[in-house]
Amino acid sequence: MVKEVITSKDNTRIKNLRKLHKKKERSKTGMFLIDGEHLVEEAMKFNQQIHYIIAEENYTFSFDVSNFEVIYVTGPVLKTLSQLEIPQGVMAAVTYMPPEVSGNKVLVLDDVQDPGNLGTLIRTADAFGFGRLVMSRETVDPFSDKVLRSAQGSTFHIQLEVTDIHPVIENFEGLSIGTSLKDEEYLEDIPQADEMLVVLGNEGRGVSESALDNVDRTVKIHMPGDSESLNVAIAGGILMHHFK
Amino acid sequence: MVKEVITSKDNTRIKNLRKLHKKKERSKTGMFLIDGEHLVEEAMKFNQQIHYIIAEENYTFSFDVSNFEVIYVTGPVLKTLSQLEIPQGVMAAVTYMPPEVSGNKVLVLDDVQDPGNLGTLIRTADAFGFGRLVMSRETVDPFSDKVLRSAQGSTFHIQLEVTDIHPVIENFEGLSIGTSLKDEEYLEDIPQADEMLVVLGNEGRGVSESALDNVDRTVKIHMPGDSESLNVAIAGGILMHHFK
Repeated sequence: MVKEVITSKDNTRIKNLRKLHKKKERSKTGMFLIDGEHLVEEAMKFNQQIHYIIAEENYTFSFDVSNFEVIYVTGPVLKTLSQLEIPQGVMAAVTYMPPEVSGNKVLVLDDVQDPGNLGTLIRTADAFGFGRLVMSRETVDPFSDKVLRSAQGSTFHIQLEVTDIHPVIENFEGLSIGTSLKDEEYLEDIPQADEMLVVLGNEGRGVSESALDNVDRTVKIHMPGDSESLNVAIAGGILMHHFK
Repeated sequence: MVKEVITSKDNTRIKNLRKLHKKKERSKTGMFLIDGEHLVEEAMKFNQQIHYIIAEENYTFSFDVSNFEVIYVTGPVLKTLSQLEIPQGVMAAVTYMPPEVSGNKVLVLDDVQDPGNLGTLIRTADAFGFGRLVMSRETVDPFSDKVLRSAQGSTFHIQLEVTDIHPVIENFEGLSIGTSLKDEEYLEDIPQADEMLVVLGNEGRGVSESALDNVDRTVKIHMPGDSESLNVAIAGGILMHHFK
């Protein structure tokens, strides 16, 4: 069978896939692009809905793609789809399918803005068994290229949800805690609980007052040094490690 | 006195300052640019050597600059110096002056490559009283714009040093530990020590074997979830918080 290769970046299918660089199009279609072998393999392994695999014409798969539609393209066409400096030869168009997760550890993000921070928090939640991640609507899009990249596949291991965080916090039946620089309780003074919800806030203003009003306890991390605050992903890492 | 304002981006002084965007020029001159009010204020407060302050013509200082040479420039000229999307109106050309620090907690970085990771590690070391940060020569330049920005001023609070890390680890008299995914000791099993040295590694390959050969103990962080590893800054945050 002769392999058909798309050679024009103006091909309709390629143009439609390229639109997925924009959040608006991702929201409309429920689809997003993932880039590189590791993410494509993780998406397959964790039963994501894969619409197409896009591969450079001379790409050699190290995994079985016989059940998927593969679109072959030239290097220059792939370069218009990829947001990597050096494209890795394979991408996919995917719809997120939340996995089943066990336990009841929830991370809630109140308007986290930086894609690297969000991606790292997804990866860290996954590492420490926080199987559910609830994001406010003002949080940066978890399906943007940069977030997916720094999450390194953990996106497909945990349940992600974008919604109004307030009822989620209010109705949580286990122990809910929020971070605050003002408050007096140190991390070490907070008990472990099987059911935990941790709220982290925006890089500039922290957790909003309205969210803090709904948590059981507010916590701060003891910092003996000269820094005024921690990066939100670092604070999240320390908290989730503590409550893992 | 009439304020002199540089209106041309081809002005020799501006051209020379713009060269500081390149690592080579920063190494040659020992100078680097800092951007925004917060960093300029921190540099002044922590006695950095400030060669010039560069301000947009209509910028109003909220701090005393009478002891410094101020170069006023137009908005478009500042935009050629600033690497921020929206320049904040004030920058400075600075030479790093290591501060005095107390204690003997050392963070060693073995080829950390990502500017955001390095900046966050500088900020986190500062928060947890790791007053000395030793970087291998292959580590990303701590005086690049992105690193300075994510360090948020902590650059000026701790001692930074770029050198061969091996003798530093070998000659350290307190407890030295390195992170490894292979090894059996969990963080919780390592004793606290007043004199501590923590080695973190490159994003792709972790701490090099040659560096691990020189540490007293190797540690891993328990991860109950599906993620294969932690981001290096998160691992560093958890370790430094533990040993603070």
